[in-house]
Amino acid sequence: MTATALDPETRLGDDDHDALRLWLRLFTCSTMIEREIGPALKREFGSSLPRFDLLAQLERNPDGLRLGALSERLLVTGGNVTWLVNSLVADGLVTRRRAPEDGRVWIVALTPDGRRSFASMARAHERWIARLLGKLSSRERTQLHSLLGHLKSSIRHEGSPQ
Amino acid sequence: MTATALDPETRLGDDDHDALRLWLRLFTCSTMIEREIGPALKREFGSSLPRFDLLAQLERNPDGLRLGALSERLLVTGGNVTWLVNSLVADGLVTRRRAPEDGRVWIVALTPDGRRSFASMARAHERWIARLLGKLSSRERTQLHSLLGHLKSSIRHEGSPQ
Repeated sequence: MTATALDPETRLGDDDHDALRLWLRLFTCSTMIEREIGPALKREFGSSLPRFDLLAQLERNPDGLRLGALSERLLVTGGNVTWLVNSLVADGLVTRRRAPEDGRVWIVALTPDGRRSFASMARAHERWIARLLGKLSSRERTQLHSLLGHLKSSIRHEGSPQ
Repeated sequence: MTATALDPETRLGDDDHDALRLWLRLFTCSTMIEREIGPALKREFGSSLPRFDLLAQLERNPDGLRLGALSERLLVTGGNVTWLVNSLVADGLVTRRRAPEDGRVWIVALTPDGRRSFASMARAHERWIARLLGKLSSRERTQLHSLLGHLKSSIRHEGSPQ
């Protein structure tokens, strides 16, 4: 039923092992969803996934976040976060101020415009995700969430120290 | 047990819904694995994930692939594939020739050096993936693979026509 189309999973040979097969399927699903959501954010809001993800982190932290904390939470490099923040500052969606206790540290926070902009994007984003995942039953979602929790814990345990 | 560290899942509020929660966990797992494998390919082979994925598709297609087919299978844009292919041609790992039946179409294939280079990367890559997924039981892997198959089918069914 699945894997009839051409995508990253098509590179698998018969002798590949479980772990690799599982990773390629996970990567394929993640990439397929990003390829739906990214263009939709662009089309409907003139935005992008990295911008949306950054605004989402700030929305959860009304006092703002240090650049380093943003980089960690978004799993992207510091240079990329600085670039994103510059572009969001230019658009009036976030502010950047020096930390009172350490002038070398920048703290980034949403502006009221940024909060409004994020809210409307977040509603559409959740609707798109719910649609894309719509064929999974509630039980399947719960199982998948739980198994991915085990996977996350495995990666964290076995991965290199960050 | 999971989700104690800071990552994209930390943006979730209590009132977010199942689908969004599931997507953020999937995205987090996928990104965490890429963040392990990418730097390891760089460190051990001076390569990158996009280069590795492209070589992997060619390894499965000894007669070569059209640029457009590569782009489709890798889920990346044509411009990015052209850029990658140029860099791999410069390194002697792939060749590019015009299709006999249509001179406007380029066909890309592995060179013997490319095949050797991919083989040694693929062995290391599979070892790294097996380690990162090592805490999942065989049963959990099977379940996860099957549920992700349903997810993939849902995304394909509900997504925009490509």
